[in-house]
Amino acid sequence: MKALKDLDIEKNIINLIEWISKYGKTSDDGITRLLYTDTWKDAQEALKQLLNEKGFMTYYDEVGNLFGKLEGCKYKDETILTGSHIDTVVNGGKLDGQFGIIGGIIAIKYLKEKFGKPLRNIEVVSMAEEEGSRFPFTFWGSKNIVGAVERKDMEGIKDVDGIKFTEAIEKSGFKFKEKNSEIRDDLKAFIELHIEQGGVLEKEKKSIGIVEHIAGQKRFMVEVEGEANHAGTTPMGYRRDAMHGSGKMIAQIMDLAKDYGDPLVATVGRVEVVPNTTNVIPGKVVFSLDIRHVDSEVVTNFINEAFLKLKDIAKDMDLKIKVNRYMDGEPVAMDTDLVNIIKRQCQENRLNYKLMHSGAGHDSQVFAKHIPTSLIFVPSHKGISHHYTEYTEAKDLAEGVKVLIKILYNLAYMDKQH
Amino acid sequence: MKALKDLDIEKNIINLIEWISKYGKTSDDGITRLLYTDTWKDAQEALKQLLNEKGFMTYYDEVGNLFGKLEGCKYKDETILTGSHIDTVVNGGKLDGQFGIIGGIIAIKYLKEKFGKPLRNIEVVSMAEEEGSRFPFTFWGSKNIVGAVERKDMEGIKDVDGIKFTEAIEKSGFKFKEKNSEIRDDLKAFIELHIEQGGVLEKEKKSIGIVEHIAGQKRFMVEVEGEANHAGTTPMGYRRDAMHGSGKMIAQIMDLAKDYGDPLVATVGRVEVVPNTTNVIPGKVVFSLDIRHVDSEVVTNFINEAFLKLKDIAKDMDLKIKVNRYMDGEPVAMDTDLVNIIKRQCQENRLNYKLMHSGAGHDSQVFAKHIPTSLIFVPSHKGISHHYTEYTEAKDLAEGVKVLIKILYNLAYMDKQH
Repeated sequence: MKALKDLDIEKNIINLIEWISKYGKTSDDGITRLLYTDTWKDAQEALKQLLNEKGFMTYYDEVGNLFGKLEGCKYKDETILTGSHIDTVVNGGKLDGQFGIIGGIIAIKYLKEKFGKPLRNIEVVSMAEEEGSRFPFTFWGSKNIVGAVERKDMEGIKDVDGIKFTEAIEKSGFKFKEKNSEIRDDLKAFIELHIEQGGVLEKEKKSIGIVEHIAGQKRFMVEVEGEANHAGTTPMGYRRDAMHGSGKMIAQIMDLAKDYGDPLVATVGRVEVVPNTTNVIPGKVVFSLDIRHVDSEVVTNFINEAFLKLKDIAKDMDLKIKVNRYMDGEPVAMDTDLVNIIKRQCQENRLNYKLMHSGAGHDSQVFAKHIPTSLIFVPSHKGISHHYTEYTEAKDLAEGVKVLIKILYNLAYMDKQH
Repeated sequence: MKALKDLDIEKNIINLIEWISKYGKTSDDGITRLLYTDTWKDAQEALKQLLNEKGFMTYYDEVGNLFGKLEGCKYKDETILTGSHIDTVVNGGKLDGQFGIIGGIIAIKYLKEKFGKPLRNIEVVSMAEEEGSRFPFTFWGSKNIVGAVERKDMEGIKDVDGIKFTEAIEKSGFKFKEKNSEIRDDLKAFIELHIEQGGVLEKEKKSIGIVEHIAGQKRFMVEVEGEANHAGTTPMGYRRDAMHGSGKMIAQIMDLAKDYGDPLVATVGRVEVVPNTTNVIPGKVVFSLDIRHVDSEVVTNFINEAFLKLKDIAKDMDLKIKVNRYMDGEPVAMDTDLVNIIKRQCQENRLNYKLMHSGAGHDSQVFAKHIPTSLIFVPSHKGISHHYTEYTEAKDLAEGVKVLIKILYNLAYMDKQH
């Protein structure tokens, strides 16, 4: 394969990212592009037109996932899929999601111009939704592709304005799948290019992250109940202070998480104190606990150990605790063969890569349960994501696209992968 | 002195408390009676009429403190004052404040009927305001009596409806003092009867609390700044988690307060987490810290020690802290001679008393800087106060009034106190 024209790829990426970012642009120069809104539809339609102009055959599925196909000449019933999601969070950045689509288009176009028709079909997908920003449901796009969603799941769901999911989908011109079919037989692999949304690659000065696992994620609400009382007239010995107890619990859980070490992460992100008044001893504290790891067993051990600490503190301080688990996502492994191929490619091309896990969820975790899947990261400046200041240097974006080009070449242009 | 007719006193208290509680009664059977409102004015006017009927000479001062006077026959330029405040918090109880007024009326009336004219004048005062519930200013009544308030302090102040303090006072028919005079020369002592507003007397099965000190009170807002980041993609080692740090700080401050022991109390009542989202590492936490003790030096030592811990934690976890003190009240000692007289009286009458401090603020702390002052507590069931469920058994209320009768007798009917 000839040396890639780095500068052209960089320029191409920046131009196309800026172009697609017009759809839903906010005053902060961020993007708000929520599922089935007009800006969302405009973005999908613009992409469709672009794909047509570039010579892709385009089509939507029933729910609005947009596909652009470059047909293969030999294995016509085998398709290599790449892409990501087109929706954003409110006032999100220009890279989360759509970079994987733009990167896919550039990669396939490059391959086509350089090497002509592939042996297998290559498709790029602009998935309808992943963020759960409009409706409280994530991975709408990929879950529909793999047949992992049922119409009844969506029927009660509304957005913040009270608009029903069922209304929104019809208004946008799409519809629920008549039959929630299995994943298409022709799909042989899915490759997703995405920004890291964390600061690890930047901190460790790496250009490429090859994801081995997407972390499992368990979320709990911990309710600590004591007794509200006057802050001045209740001696320390007579208190059942829910905040004192919660402070100890939070400190000990976090210390324990640090002791466990990478890749375990634990976060208490939300804390509600009742009554939350300076001169009243808190009678109740409710805090969230988010735990992620790539190994279910480690998570289970951690949780058991952490909750034992919570119980000890509660008992010691005469507090009641209630723990409610409201999310329980298993870790998902990416395809080992694909990881190895990409790793070798990085080594051959002297790329500065890191084998890593993803602490955030991605469409890849939905695909990985059905077909060989790989997730490739480029750095995020300061780890910022879901914010209009999200940023990755153009050369890093280009590096990601180059890795994508190589793996797509390997999968679609060669008879056997090696 | 003859044995007091206990049952009559109990019945008297209950009847009068229920009667005055009509003014501002809430649907919960609590009271909302805010300064210079119609219900407040009605309550003062009703009390004035009652006092007149009972043979008291009555008068308001300029700001609306109501006085009922029983004239002395010998030391006509010496007055013993008792009473408390007539205002309440929103949906407060029937005892906080007005019990001290009703108790005073019953005590003086009892003394008059039993012993005729005192040597010194005795006055009962129904003070305009103590709670700070309508306007952000506390002790309006007592501060005006001792000459510790200036017109300019009140000029910018508004209630939640935007009504100016200056308008409210005029509308009620009262006015600012023309000249903010010193405390009246004739006032020789102030005795306040009040519910404890804490659970100590009930827990320790005592009927009477003789307050030796009102605790000093310092309040701080502690701002802990870290770095907000993605809960999944930021390894524990790369975090600057403001909640992890705050949890440690809160736990350590509280543990330290327990180690210091009574009467020190420390409370973190209010906690604000930013952005307060389950999947984002908190970038900022602001928490309140309320510290009370009867000895300034102990408070200072505690604060120094506590803040050293905060700084160590912050340094250790790469967090920034800002501490802002927004309240700094010195402890106030009650008059030792009065404490001793009341204590001896309790012993002679085999009353179940406790020498104690008050963790809450009271009008007594305003008077104590000017004249010999004593604060007498009766128990509060479960320590509840500032709530419509506030409750004290009738026999305990009566016990308090009997102690008040005895000390008023001692101060106003005897040539020399002993």
